[in-house]
Amino acid sequence: MTQVTLETHNKIAAITSDFKGKDIISLDQFSAEDLQTLFAVTGKMKQLVLNHESSQLLAGYMVSLLFFEPSSRTFGSFASAVKRLGGQTLDIQNPEIVTSTSKGESFEDTIRVFEAYSDVIVLRHRTSGAAKQAAKAAQFVPVINAGDGTNEHPTQTLLDLYTLYEQFGRLDSLNGLLVGDAYNSRTIHSLIRGLSLFPNNTLYLLSPVQLRLTRGDFARLSTQGVKLIEISSEKDIPRECHFWYWTRVQQERFASPDEYHSAVQNSLIVTPHLLHDYAKQDMILMDPLPRVGTIDPAVDGDERAVYLKSQIRNGLYTRMALLALILGKV
Amino acid sequence: MTQVTLETHNKIAAITSDFKGKDIISLDQFSAEDLQTLFAVTGKMKQLVLNHESSQLLAGYMVSLLFFEPSSRTFGSFASAVKRLGGQTLDIQNPEIVTSTSKGESFEDTIRVFEAYSDVIVLRHRTSGAAKQAAKAAQFVPVINAGDGTNEHPTQTLLDLYTLYEQFGRLDSLNGLLVGDAYNSRTIHSLIRGLSLFPNNTLYLLSPVQLRLTRGDFARLSTQGVKLIEISSEKDIPRECHFWYWTRVQQERFASPDEYHSAVQNSLIVTPHLLHDYAKQDMILMDPLPRVGTIDPAVDGDERAVYLKSQIRNGLYTRMALLALILGKV
Amino acid sequence: MTQVTLETHNKIAAITSDFKGKDIISLDQFSAEDLQTLFAVTGKMKQLVLNHESSQLLAGYMVSLLFFEPSSRTFGSFASAVKRLGGQTLDIQNPEIVTSTSKGESFEDTIRVFEAYSDVIVLRHRTSGAAKQAAKAAQFVPVINAGDGTNEHPTQTLLDLYTLYEQFGRLDSLNGLLVGDAYNSRTIHSLIRGLSLFPNNTLYLLSPVQLRLTRGDFARLSTQGVKLIEISSEKDIPRECHFWYWTRVQQERFASPDEYHSAVQNSLIVTPHLLHDYAKQDMILMDPLPRVGTIDPAVDGDERAVYLKSQIRNGLYTRMALLALILGKV
Repeated sequence: MTQVTLETHNKIAAITSDFKGKDIISLDQFSAEDLQTLFAVTGKMKQLVLNHESSQLLAGYMVSLLFFEPSSRTFGSFASAVKRLGGQTLDIQNPEIVTSTSKGESFEDTIRVFEAYSDVIVLRHRTSGAAKQAAKAAQFVPVINAGDGTNEHPTQTLLDLYTLYEQFGRLDSLNGLLVGDAYNSRTIHSLIRGLSLFPNNTLYLLSPVQLRLTRGDFARLSTQGVKLIEISSEKDIPRECHFWYWTRVQQERFASPDEYHSAVQNSLIVTPHLLHDYAKQDMILMDPLPRVGTIDPAVDGDERAVYLKSQIRNGLYTRMALLALILGKV
Repeated sequence: MTQVTLETHNKIAAITSDFKGKDIISLDQFSAEDLQTLFAVTGKMKQLVLNHESSQLLAGYMVSLLFFEPSSRTFGSFASAVKRLGGQTLDIQNPEIVTSTSKGESFEDTIRVFEAYSDVIVLRHRTSGAAKQAAKAAQFVPVINAGDGTNEHPTQTLLDLYTLYEQFGRLDSLNGLLVGDAYNSRTIHSLIRGLSLFPNNTLYLLSPVQLRLTRGDFARLSTQGVKLIEISSEKDIPRECHFWYWTRVQQERFASPDEYHSAVQNSLIVTPHLLHDYAKQDMILMDPLPRVGTIDPAVDGDERAVYLKSQIRNGLYTRMALLALILGKV
Repeated sequence: MTQVTLETHNKIAAITSDFKGKDIISLDQFSAEDLQTLFAVTGKMKQLVLNHESSQLLAGYMVSLLFFEPSSRTFGSFASAVKRLGGQTLDIQNPEIVTSTSKGESFEDTIRVFEAYSDVIVLRHRTSGAAKQAAKAAQFVPVINAGDGTNEHPTQTLLDLYTLYEQFGRLDSLNGLLVGDAYNSRTIHSLIRGLSLFPNNTLYLLSPVQLRLTRGDFARLSTQGVKLIEISSEKDIPRECHFWYWTRVQQERFASPDEYHSAVQNSLIVTPHLLHDYAKQDMILMDPLPRVGTIDPAVDGDERAVYLKSQIRNGLYTRMALLALILGKV
């Protein structure tokens, strides 16, 4: 049994240039070099899809998609990623209803059952920490965190970082604007940590008062290598931002509808007017989606609006690359 | 953006011998020649399935099956059609629960997300007009209407027409009997329009009084090239009909259970006796299914009963042909 | 029609060395020779999976997985089995909601619709006898019973028997301990019948008083070739058992929560202590899962505990073998 425990430990460890067999639970596992490796493969995956090449890279491999909470984008992009590479998926959506957990089976047993049928487990779960718990339960196959509660959603941040990398050819010396629920948003927290791996980045934070970073988070994230600057009005948005990253205010985070509506009323929405007044020409406008109260559809036609174009597509390419690397196929 | 708008316009346009990249929203897009093209390919697809050939025609292609309302037959035949041709599907059933629409995402954004992950979108929706709305939202991939409310279900009519074509070698000079809910049934309306593309067809309509075509619909459809004759009793069924097409009375169309039951009580059911008395030997008996209060199972063994045999199977072959044509693979 | 009826009869008949085209409804269809055939193929399937060979044995074949009740393990292992062999699946989970049965379609019609789209139907259903009913409705493709109510779940027993066969190299001259709900458990009943095909087996039964075999079942099963011995306490467990087979007490079988809790309180749980005191070293501990109140997770690390290891994996290999045999591919 000692061997298995050791292996499990190694699975969740830092990647350090070796993706094969690793669990992907947290962005903290990635170094700047690991991201470079991933992005090089991602570029190849993009070409493969655009050329409609029929890849058999994952032929004979089975990926369980265990989605304990609904997520159309993440489910769709993982399913598409596996199949575009010739692999197969075992799709379980809302497995709390469908699986034996309704009969009282433990979460660990469910994970081990699907481990027996597949080569990778992709897990989406409402509970923070569920991905790590699954990675510990799975003894032989890697687990990918596709979002566990308010904790982490590393592949979202990987695609966000790739979108910046593809646009600017680098991940250092960038100025960005992060807007929305900095208090709760796992995507904002993770993006800050991802950009902290590279020198000379500055991030401006604009949130309703009640949704700002806590002083503790602000201090902690500031020490990681990125310069954080809080601003309090659209008038403070600096012209030199390379990207804007908008996030929605999530109703489920609030104790009462009143508190939610108060936060929403104080939220900034991207309009053509706002872009015209505060954005430079070669910046990009990003949103992790779903877009609810964040960006006016009138902006969609602007070529700087990448959220429904390259950003969403990069989710497919990045996940293809990650799967191929974890399975040792590139 | 102009280019995209133009492209979108062209996508929903008449097919005029060029299926590639077209949305399939309405039967009105098809000319008699387009149907001939489709049916020639359909015949080849039938042979492919019967021979268990392992086709790779759609290898490397992904088809999103977005079913916002349940439909076992249509879902099953589209999924089977894609996979029989070596393609892959992205299956979302009941996506109103599963997807981000539950978080407030717009329908257009959901469509554009799945557009990013796939090469074709097949949409089933409760709302009339949803397919056209989706086709406008999707800028790069074709959308196939798999039934949008009471509006249209063009692939159902295509398989109905193919079933007639395969049986009689032509779609002109046919006499047919259409029974059931002529007032609401999209399949009856579409079948009339499809047969209007060919000369010398006569259709007899037999419905409970409250479920007859409106005078407006009757007049409009009569001008399209087919001869419509309403009859009021089984005794009026002419012996020379080439086909009978039975449709169920749909409870969900009625304001009250009483009105529904009154309509059902006045509905005609096919029995061996009715077939014996009014049908000729080389006719066929069709039903778009599900069969609820339309045909006595005692009829199933009759060789004229094609609804659970060639008619249902033709749904698979027709959809295989349509997908291959839209993707430019034949 | 006579021909169809005859064919249907043959489909559900005894296998007698010819799996091709047969329905798999009951363990009673299998002879000892049939099991040997199946297990020889199962061993090959295991090697294929372990070597990540990309098989195309079922290329061009479609398997409908109609799961009218949830079952993560059985669904997952059948889906994985089909896809590991290069086949495709048509997945319908909870079809009572999804399919036309919600519109009033008969069960037989639903089966015949999916028959038209696929080459095999795998059916899971809450109702005893549903699999046989489906096999009668399906005229052209085989039906596999993936569990029908309290009636049968033959592939579960096939994997259980294979697990014993793989461990001991034989299915005769074994001593086993069966624990739990002998009154209701279809897996216990079927395992007894399966082991009755081979000489010189002895099975010890240990259940709470209210969950023992009925006198009728005890007498009937005793005449089939296996020696049955009821014991009443852990102290009676003989040291020489080759295997222990634990089953949970299923709440849904009891009229009231009180009766259920009374039965559970009198149930025996496997602990490291129990294994130490009563099990020999080269025995195996089995559980059909889900594990609810049957085995202490502290036992999982014991190498005799196969339930989450070889036993669950054998479910995949056995079903691969069965599908390949039924489709005449081996």
